[in-house]
Amino acid sequence: MALIVQKYGGTSVGSIERIEAVARKVAAMHKRGNQVVVVVSAMSGETNRLIALAGEIDARPDPREMDVLLSTGEQVTIALLSMALQKAGCAARSYTGGQVHILTDDAHSKARIRDIDDARVRADLDAGRVVVIAGFQGVDEHGDITTLGRGGSDTTAVAMAAALKADECQIFTDVDGVYTTDPRVEPKARRLARITFEEMLEMASLGSKVLQIRAVEFAGKYNVPLRVLSSFEEGDGTLISFEDNHMEEAKISGIAFSSDEAKLTILGVPDQPGVAYSILGPIAAVNIEVDMIVQNIAEDETTDFTFTVHRNEYPRALEVLKETAKVLGAREVLGDESIVKISLVGVGMRSHAGIASTMFEALAREGINIRMISTSEIKISVVVDEKYLELGVRTLHQAFGLDQELQA
Amino acid sequence: MALIVQKYGGTSVGSIERIEAVARKVAAMHKRGNQVVVVVSAMSGETNRLIALAGEIDARPDPREMDVLLSTGEQVTIALLSMALQKAGCAARSYTGGQVHILTDDAHSKARIRDIDDARVRADLDAGRVVVIAGFQGVDEHGDITTLGRGGSDTTAVAMAAALKADECQIFTDVDGVYTTDPRVEPKARRLARITFEEMLEMASLGSKVLQIRAVEFAGKYNVPLRVLSSFEEGDGTLISFEDNHMEEAKISGIAFSSDEAKLTILGVPDQPGVAYSILGPIAAVNIEVDMIVQNIAEDETTDFTFTVHRNEYPRALEVLKETAKVLGAREVLGDESIVKISLVGVGMRSHAGIASTMFEALAREGINIRMISTSEIKISVVVDEKYLELGVRTLHQAFGLDQELQA
Repeated sequence: MALIVQKYGGTSVGSIERIEAVARKVAAMHKRGNQVVVVVSAMSGETNRLIALAGEIDARPDPREMDVLLSTGEQVTIALLSMALQKAGCAARSYTGGQVHILTDDAHSKARIRDIDDARVRADLDAGRVVVIAGFQGVDEHGDITTLGRGGSDTTAVAMAAALKADECQIFTDVDGVYTTDPRVEPKARRLARITFEEMLEMASLGSKVLQIRAVEFAGKYNVPLRVLSSFEEGDGTLISFEDNHMEEAKISGIAFSSDEAKLTILGVPDQPGVAYSILGPIAAVNIEVDMIVQNIAEDETTDFTFTVHRNEYPRALEVLKETAKVLGAREVLGDESIVKISLVGVGMRSHAGIASTMFEALAREGINIRMISTSEIKISVVVDEKYLELGVRTLHQAFGLDQELQA
Repeated sequence: MALIVQKYGGTSVGSIERIEAVARKVAAMHKRGNQVVVVVSAMSGETNRLIALAGEIDARPDPREMDVLLSTGEQVTIALLSMALQKAGCAARSYTGGQVHILTDDAHSKARIRDIDDARVRADLDAGRVVVIAGFQGVDEHGDITTLGRGGSDTTAVAMAAALKADECQIFTDVDGVYTTDPRVEPKARRLARITFEEMLEMASLGSKVLQIRAVEFAGKYNVPLRVLSSFEEGDGTLISFEDNHMEEAKISGIAFSSDEAKLTILGVPDQPGVAYSILGPIAAVNIEVDMIVQNIAEDETTDFTFTVHRNEYPRALEVLKETAKVLGAREVLGDESIVKISLVGVGMRSHAGIASTMFEALAREGINIRMISTSEIKISVVVDEKYLELGVRTLHQAFGLDQELQA
């Protein structure tokens, strides 16, 4: 008998028929002798409907009241799923975030979970019931309703699995697992049976939007085995686990990319301590998130400094940087909105030399010019011109043999 | 400065425009220096939409889960109204039933309020905020969500007014007050400026569906002055208050009626102690509510026993009564589904003789045959053939001068 936490997203519970299908899946899992906790999102479309209602009243509604409003979405789903489970002959009971004391801080619309009181859930599980919990929501210490931000249901599921020390946390989505890269770009992309937490973090943050990054961090921190699988198709999905489960042969797990990037460069700034802070401080002060940062070695007592931001933030970042350039007496500010980032991800590269050179050689062979390079222990990212996105991804996918089924 | 509890029903908050109109009304009341607590229902149509969703899954869904589902309706409204109040420049904060600890028993879908913890509400009022509370809902001692049954928002408002010792509880509806009778039957029906709690109870239970009867009982019990008024028109509505405010001249306040009645008679039952219980016990056992009961004096050591039930319950009641007749050796069972009940209501009749004879004479003059009579201290009810409903109501309305504006 295992204790399984399952999470179904908005599309998976988007209609009564789908809720009934989820109920059958859950009931079958329960019938096989498992204890099951189900975390659900709002029915797809519902959150947007509620946001639109609020928008009719106020373009910037009070975050506290917005959370009161949005949290009703999941509450509807938990009630309907519990009814469907009971109809399917499976005892079930629903709880809102507040009812199972998912205690968060008071940062409305982006609250973080601090604690979960699992006593009631355990009592229900021990009594043979399936427990259905509203994802995405909690309460702060005053009892005010909070939400964890979009996609927060994944975090709820992982936090619940951690609190209950569940055997596995299964995230059901509309994809059947984590792929070596985006199949829309490279049709030969292959589903990974396993991936490590660190790799998944890099894949998620780089644009493989299967799982919310906070959920993966949470799972890694509390050692919760996480599985991504499809609500609509049978299959084992992808297990996100610890490195010791990883096959040594797989140097590279996948190729992530992000096409929402923009690059800014400030040329000829004085090469002195504190210059990075002088440049990035004003950017952070206006809440722009910086992704890659590259500083080249100094020449003539000045240096060049390049960083990337989300493309939406580009105009504002450019404005701020020009001001900074004046203050620092920099030579020039350059910017480029037509770039993309492509990243190789794999824990295998730690112990295998030559990954970077294979990567650069493959790109060079196709005439793809690399504009920026940044590396971490398990990732190499390059920035290239936007037009090379598809070609670059496919070239690397083939160069590292990701389209080949691995021999076990 | 007064402390006012206002309640707005589903039609009054049925769209964003109407919610904004309610916000303006509330903000104006607040600006005049009053402390205001607002209790709201779900937007009209929302509760039915949720019921339909549940109905797709199960014709008889679990009452606990049904309450989790339905309580989202009011939660949406409190958030939207709070946003609209803030937009109108009026500080406001929303609470669900659970958040202000509206403690109820655990009778899902028809829970009764046991206690309210008003500490948070008072703190907000003292801080100058309008408090917006979800009607119709509470929590039981386990923290499970309960609902008070349809129309329960009135009860929430009155209970809140009682807990806060409010100066007045104002129920905003789509009618502008309590009328001497239903204006659809008698166009000359007149709005009453005042009515006593006892009269209102009789009027409400007899089919003037302005206020939920439990709310009126509650208001009477806790001495909460209650006012019914229109959400859409200006006006003072009807104040429901204590007898000492009542004008002595008004013998009769109004004429109530109910067209959902059916009558059952058992003839020739032994006239002995316990016979009433033998007849009504089996009816109560199948949860059928009995309204009027009449037992005539005994002849030949047997008696006849007549009672009325809701017309929907008639077939089942008839079936049960036939069984009882066999057991008791009764002579015959008769039934009639084509009857209505018309009632004169007025505390004035206590001290005025001749009301009943005036009533019977007026009906006789129109050739209306009375099939059953029942009286209480402030009410005389007659059962007549269905076809006489309109004629009967109009005849009595005129006979007691209810269409005349009273001189103060």
